[in-house]
Amino acid sequence: MPEQINPNAVRVLSYGMYVVSSKLGEKLNGQIANTVFQTTADPQQLSVCINHQNLTWEYIDKSGYFGVSVLGQDATMEFIGLFGFKSGRNVDKLSRVKYKIGAAGLPLVLDHALSVLEAKVVGSLDMGTHTLFVGQVVAAEVLKTGRPMTYDFYHRELKGKAPKTAPTYVADSSKEIKM
Amino acid sequence: MPEQINPNAVRVLSYGMYVVSSKLGEKLNGQIANTVFQTTADPQQLSVCINHQNLTWEYIDKSGYFGVSVLGQDATMEFIGLFGFKSGRNVDKLSRVKYKIGAAGLPLVLDHALSVLEAKVVGSLDMGTHTLFVGQVVAAEVLKTGRPMTYDFYHRELKGKAPKTAPTYVADSSKEIKM
Repeated sequence: MPEQINPNAVRVLSYGMYVVSSKLGEKLNGQIANTVFQTTADPQQLSVCINHQNLTWEYIDKSGYFGVSVLGQDATMEFIGLFGFKSGRNVDKLSRVKYKIGAAGLPLVLDHALSVLEAKVVGSLDMGTHTLFVGQVVAAEVLKTGRPMTYDFYHRELKGKAPKTAPTYVADSSKEIKM
Repeated sequence: MPEQINPNAVRVLSYGMYVVSSKLGEKLNGQIANTVFQTTADPQQLSVCINHQNLTWEYIDKSGYFGVSVLGQDATMEFIGLFGFKSGRNVDKLSRVKYKIGAAGLPLVLDHALSVLEAKVVGSLDMGTHTLFVGQVVAAEVLKTGRPMTYDFYHRELKGKAPKTAPTYVADSSKEIKM
């Protein structure tokens, strides 16, 4: 079978922008993710894809829980930079933002969040560089109304880029790159 | 742990709109899906979540391949209705639209498509009502430029709803429902 892959074909897939959080013992962390999806409605399950290199991956893998903050369009580049381009191994990210401990015990970032969810991992799939975690929602709260930030909005309006550990990362060889 | 789940919390998650297609022998079919996402970049892998009741699920499960057409904002309610609210068990959907057979042998719907991709299933996860299929991209083509249709655009602009077999289906008890 001939491989005929135009790498631009996937650039029109749509995503939101989220902070995925977790904890291990007393240690808290969170990171930007675009691949958060509801994958079943009954029960309500979420999927999220996290790079093996990320500290949040280790916390989710070991603790079996993750939190999600759905970001609104008011999220700033500074905020996204903190959670998307810095590692929790070097920076205590949560200390720099407003967060709370949710009903299931997870840290939930409140800044710029429209809603927050907590999920218990019920399945996972190793995808090579990333793990896809499936979590059953155990708590979910709406914080405010507003337009969610999409990955397209992030690139188009904030001129943002993808970190190397993103599922959608493409080497930045062009100024027109859109990940 | 107390379960405190506000069902509206997931309604601000973002998705695109896609036709996921497959074939079994000479039989071709496709359906609307919103849960298509890129889950790794190297190799390029896509995930898609399909309801067990759908004919496309059977074709993907048995054939090990699926195609994706990324829909633009010009997709009509009539088109979405054909692929989203009718079953291939009753209607030969592909006969009613423009499609082609791609490099990997999959039927690819061309109407309203910005790009088309073909993927070989390399993993799957049973999620109860749905299966999450992971496919390695084996062919991908850009057809035209344009703004992708998002699930939000579909609800907001086209006033569309979700079929009962969608991962994001919620019983329509309110006129303000947004799935």
